[in-house]
Amino acid sequence: MKIGVIGSGSWATAMIKMLSDNKQPKQVYWWVRKEEDVAHIRTYKHNPSYLSSVEVDFADEFVTSNLREVVAQSDIIILNTPAAYLKAVLSPLSAADFEGKVVVSAIKGIVPDENMVVGDYLPYAYQVPLEEIVVVGGPCHAEEVSSERLSYLTIASRRVDHAKTVASLLETRYIKMIISSDIIGIEYAAVLKNIFALAGGICHGLGFGDNFQAVLVSNAIREIDYFVKALDPSDREINHSAYLGDLLVTAYSQYSRNRTFGAMIGKGYSVKSAQVEMNMVAEGYYASACIQSIIKKNKLHMPICDTVYQILYQGAQPMQEIKKLADSLT
Amino acid sequence: MKIGVIGSGSWATAMIKMLSDNKQPKQVYWWVRKEEDVAHIRTYKHNPSYLSSVEVDFADEFVTSNLREVVAQSDIIILNTPAAYLKAVLSPLSAADFEGKVVVSAIKGIVPDENMVVGDYLPYAYQVPLEEIVVVGGPCHAEEVSSERLSYLTIASRRVDHAKTVASLLETRYIKMIISSDIIGIEYAAVLKNIFALAGGICHGLGFGDNFQAVLVSNAIREIDYFVKALDPSDREINHSAYLGDLLVTAYSQYSRNRTFGAMIGKGYSVKSAQVEMNMVAEGYYASACIQSIIKKNKLHMPICDTVYQILYQGAQPMQEIKKLADSLT
Repeated sequence: MKIGVIGSGSWATAMIKMLSDNKQPKQVYWWVRKEEDVAHIRTYKHNPSYLSSVEVDFADEFVTSNLREVVAQSDIIILNTPAAYLKAVLSPLSAADFEGKVVVSAIKGIVPDENMVVGDYLPYAYQVPLEEIVVVGGPCHAEEVSSERLSYLTIASRRVDHAKTVASLLETRYIKMIISSDIIGIEYAAVLKNIFALAGGICHGLGFGDNFQAVLVSNAIREIDYFVKALDPSDREINHSAYLGDLLVTAYSQYSRNRTFGAMIGKGYSVKSAQVEMNMVAEGYYASACIQSIIKKNKLHMPICDTVYQILYQGAQPMQEIKKLADSLT
Repeated sequence: MKIGVIGSGSWATAMIKMLSDNKQPKQVYWWVRKEEDVAHIRTYKHNPSYLSSVEVDFADEFVTSNLREVVAQSDIIILNTPAAYLKAVLSPLSAADFEGKVVVSAIKGIVPDENMVVGDYLPYAYQVPLEEIVVVGGPCHAEEVSSERLSYLTIASRRVDHAKTVASLLETRYIKMIISSDIIGIEYAAVLKNIFALAGGICHGLGFGDNFQAVLVSNAIREIDYFVKALDPSDREINHSAYLGDLLVTAYSQYSRNRTFGAMIGKGYSVKSAQVEMNMVAEGYYASACIQSIIKKNKLHMPICDTVYQILYQGAQPMQEIKKLADSLT
């Protein structure tokens, strides 16, 4: 089995670790964008920028900046870039390159312009059949994978055999697998949770406490439930780990970039200066704009998402917006 | 309107603060068990043991250790003792003392021996009609009330006018009110959440991280849903603040005594030594035994509750039990 991992951020590096620690025989190819990072990984056996504690003991030829080669070699392609860069990364490829491959999305975000989750975007842009797509859901912070703390992944596919194959390649002593068929619901929930974590961060930055946070999160999971039902009314239990768990780990974790970004906004940073300061992409920032256009198009009632959008994109005063929101929470 | 508050812990003191800050004309009587605490409050205008920053500017005659007098004077009686001591506290009273009164339970726990939530116990032991009972649900840590951070209470009663009356007496600039009719569901959820917070503490103490915690909590809310449906199949949205929110604030907050107690168990303290060290009642400890007997009687499947019970009462090894539990989470 040949597997190509596309991307070299924290989550991609965590996945490289899982694939390495997993005992099943396989060959892993790793696409890393920058030449100098490739050279660093080949020489020093770790990613210079993310999860540097993870040892990457690959022969030189398996770490490369040659995307077409990685894709051509692989039976299973794991996409693991920030959603905002996916189109640019995939731009050298055409539909033919994906033919006969299983494509796994470990991306938790929305493809800009098209405002599509990856499970919708791949069939649309590269004619990948929906049946050949697998989605990797959380709740799983990369940082805790690197320290081998027990975590769970939810592997979703229309084809249960694909989900099981991918699960069998990623499971390790410290990663347990849950199988699902709800590609679209899990993807949207993963996108939305970043917006809610950002909202939680804003409130924290403004000085709201744990009591308020609990009310916010309990309203957030209801917004997620309502949103995914509106877009894809399949049968799902919204309190399963891939939905509620994923929201919780992001909203309550110290590692959450979206929460940190939100807290800076709440403390009075401008969007621009918070971005400069953080030096990491807060997916929730992009997600807010994408989701807002879906909300508008479908005339959905999503008060927390609206609030975040007003603050991030419309220059609204955080305290004023959150106070208004607070009156509508139940 | 005359209101009697029975109890003098953190939550009772927080409620005294709400009643004082609330603008509606009323007379509040406060029953405090210990004579020396009564004297301290009269002299220094604050509770010596809990939330001491809260100013209690009552005339002397309204703070007393005379329970019968407080009950006799009051139209509305707010019970706010630890559940474990409620029977002892109420023992001087008979059914006649409650006649014509609205009885509010702010207790989040189960009455031992009878294994009843307060909404079941009061009709059973004192013939208080179910319609005259009001339950105060969270999510609301007393500590954040004392610092006036925006919080929400859920006020539940079969009679919506009673719920609204109590809400109108407790609401302040920093406390918002949600009205509900689900007395029993809110009470059980409040009891169960202490057990789950304790479980989260055990896992934290054992070294499990945020990823695992998120899975644990997402399984916990499903256990709550299942349990309250089994005992009282009314129509409720388990992700409302009084259920999920209350679980979250307890499971994730630094103020949670149950979480702290669990963390000590996870770190290797015995139950006895953790109790001595903490000097506060962890309601989840008592709740675990009470709930276990309900689980047994009703043949319910509650893996997290079972695990906590095994660890606290049956001498099971925490790490071994949590690993077993981990295999069943989804």
